[in-house]
Amino acid sequence: MITFENAFEHVLEHTLDFGDETVTLLKSTGRILSEDIKADRDFPPFNRSTKDGIVIAFSAIEKGITRFKVEGVLSAGMPQQKLSTDHNCLEIMTGAVLPEQADTIVMYEETAIKDGWASITKTPKKGQNIHRQGTDEQKGAILLKKGTEITAAVIGVLASVGKKDVLVKTLPKICVVSTGNELVEIQETPLPHQIRKSNSLSLASALKKVKITPTLLHIADDKSIIEKELEKAILKYDVLMLSGGVSKGKFDFIPDALHNLGIEKVFHRVAQRPGKPFWFGVQKEKQKVIFSFPGNPVSTFANYHVYFLPWLKKSLGTETKNPSVILDEPIQPHPSLTLFVQVTCHWHQGKLIAKTIKGNGSGDLVSLALADGFIRVPQGDNEILQGMVFDYTEAG
Amino acid sequence: MITFENAFEHVLEHTLDFGDETVTLLKSTGRILSEDIKADRDFPPFNRSTKDGIVIAFSAIEKGITRFKVEGVLSAGMPQQKLSTDHNCLEIMTGAVLPEQADTIVMYEETAIKDGWASITKTPKKGQNIHRQGTDEQKGAILLKKGTEITAAVIGVLASVGKKDVLVKTLPKICVVSTGNELVEIQETPLPHQIRKSNSLSLASALKKVKITPTLLHIADDKSIIEKELEKAILKYDVLMLSGGVSKGKFDFIPDALHNLGIEKVFHRVAQRPGKPFWFGVQKEKQKVIFSFPGNPVSTFANYHVYFLPWLKKSLGTETKNPSVILDEPIQPHPSLTLFVQVTCHWHQGKLIAKTIKGNGSGDLVSLALADGFIRVPQGDNEILQGMVFDYTEAG
Repeated sequence: MITFENAFEHVLEHTLDFGDETVTLLKSTGRILSEDIKADRDFPPFNRSTKDGIVIAFSAIEKGITRFKVEGVLSAGMPQQKLSTDHNCLEIMTGAVLPEQADTIVMYEETAIKDGWASITKTPKKGQNIHRQGTDEQKGAILLKKGTEITAAVIGVLASVGKKDVLVKTLPKICVVSTGNELVEIQETPLPHQIRKSNSLSLASALKKVKITPTLLHIADDKSIIEKELEKAILKYDVLMLSGGVSKGKFDFIPDALHNLGIEKVFHRVAQRPGKPFWFGVQKEKQKVIFSFPGNPVSTFANYHVYFLPWLKKSLGTETKNPSVILDEPIQPHPSLTLFVQVTCHWHQGKLIAKTIKGNGSGDLVSLALADGFIRVPQGDNEILQGMVFDYTEAG
Repeated sequence: MITFENAFEHVLEHTLDFGDETVTLLKSTGRILSEDIKADRDFPPFNRSTKDGIVIAFSAIEKGITRFKVEGVLSAGMPQQKLSTDHNCLEIMTGAVLPEQADTIVMYEETAIKDGWASITKTPKKGQNIHRQGTDEQKGAILLKKGTEITAAVIGVLASVGKKDVLVKTLPKICVVSTGNELVEIQETPLPHQIRKSNSLSLASALKKVKITPTLLHIADDKSIIEKELEKAILKYDVLMLSGGVSKGKFDFIPDALHNLGIEKVFHRVAQRPGKPFWFGVQKEKQKVIFSFPGNPVSTFANYHVYFLPWLKKSLGTETKNPSVILDEPIQPHPSLTLFVQVTCHWHQGKLIAKTIKGNGSGDLVSLALADGFIRVPQGDNEILQGMVFDYTEAG
């Protein structure tokens, strides 16, 4: 049995690279950029009006002119025009191109316009109300770096530089495998000794959040069937995510089957609760990784968030923030196990405050649905006091 | 011009109800439950073993028996069996049904099994290692309430009670309308005075996060075309989300067009930066709502997150947490405008610490892509000191 810290380190040592692929812009939300994105032109691409008003040459102000003949109206989308003389002005709308021979914009609120003449009611500053070409970014500048997560705001930048197709990190092909003869399908009515599948559906839902659609596979508790089915799955997928079949029970055939299939066990059993029987293995040459989680819901869910998600992020070349929370009550650590404790959180004055959920242990699905995430309580002997800070893994 | 507080209140007064619909379980992730979910049986449905080991009758221990003949092996998925006499035991796997006449489970680690006989090496407590029927939830209990957001953990609960179809709140049909003759499609190479569309794509990406796939519509800056196109859109959609066309410019026809179409203006112009020209209107009888955001990217993005998302959540009958952050620097409020300031955030000891981004104002797409969200800085005259707490809107 190894410590949580050791297990976590091992998992992160075995990241994979799934390469790159091109997806259309709107399909790229939530994916990870696999190219630097450069400005294809200056940002803004021209001297751009930031107000609705009139545009003048400041030389007129210096000559004492405050009343201008209106030559016309410039709107966003019109090619650049020219102010014919500094005795005149043009009306100009937000987003329009600054005309030649002009350099200062006075907003409507500081003008009076009548009969084709505009008077200014407040002396302008030279160059005011202009968003200058290239002041946000210059052509060729790197706007977004490889490894950036594509958010809605990033989509805006990609659109504006014309990336209708985007190079992103390819996601792993994942097979979620459930085992256990007690499991029946959701639509079935279970006999008293049976229960419906839930772990594999929870995992599929969680994976969808990171844009992965896994294949779901159920295997009966039969050693030769397990070995045959796992062999096929290992060929076809990058990652197997199993739940069940790794405790010490007589019918837990998974570790043996994986061994026979040439998967190298990195570790089995971690000094943690829940999720002690967590099994992790790799096939280095063929670039396969197997996360074999214990069968109960809370263990599987905690291990998925604590181990798999950081592994995925590192594999995709991106990083996570590491949230921490302040616990609003004392807690008793375990002398030899790292605990992952379900909590609900609320905000108070810029602090995230956590309260533990009194669940019924690792089989309790309902308490899991109420939790916002898990705090990590390191092993130890001393009671931990109210107000102490813990690493936090959000798990919605 | 009205205050932010007023505008926000007005928006939340005009929520809509889009009714309910049934979706399949895996499609329900991220949606809002529109029914209470009850336990269809006890949780767990039987007295369930929580360890791999042997199961005995505690009466044997009271008689001083510590060595038992092994009758057989019970695994998860087997119907309930019976222990024939308290001189015997059964091996039992995690998840298996407690047999009749037995009441105590001793894990393998505390037994020695040889030649069909099991000795116990540590005196058990009566009833240990059993997850009792109904101790998590009793049949008929409400497990999840209407209004719950369907997370991955919730999917697990829904699966376990057999909800292959789930009643959820229907989402609004949304049309995202862009206006402005300066806008060209992403795949086009803009002329010097043109720019590519980005706002509508950012909004579409943001809406996808809340499971809404909007229709995108671009309308040229022509009053009669705008009116005709908006009329069609209002018939077809619950919500129009416009960007551009609401400033004071000569070519901003939207407010007039909406007025002519019988949309009641609730407000136009809010004492806020960015996003002062925000226009909000409703058509009460026909249950339509129009969010008309200013055309620049930062305004549109801030207003979407600050106004639209809370409106959506309230319309769907669910609630949001209200995060707050601690600002790591002083800031100058505006004497008469509420400011939405772009920040990046990091965690420190359970606190979320924000730093402002020095963007180039409301046209700066790139700074927006770097921001984690916005803090809300109320209007005022005094400089706000480092370490003060602000309401925070995450906007990834």
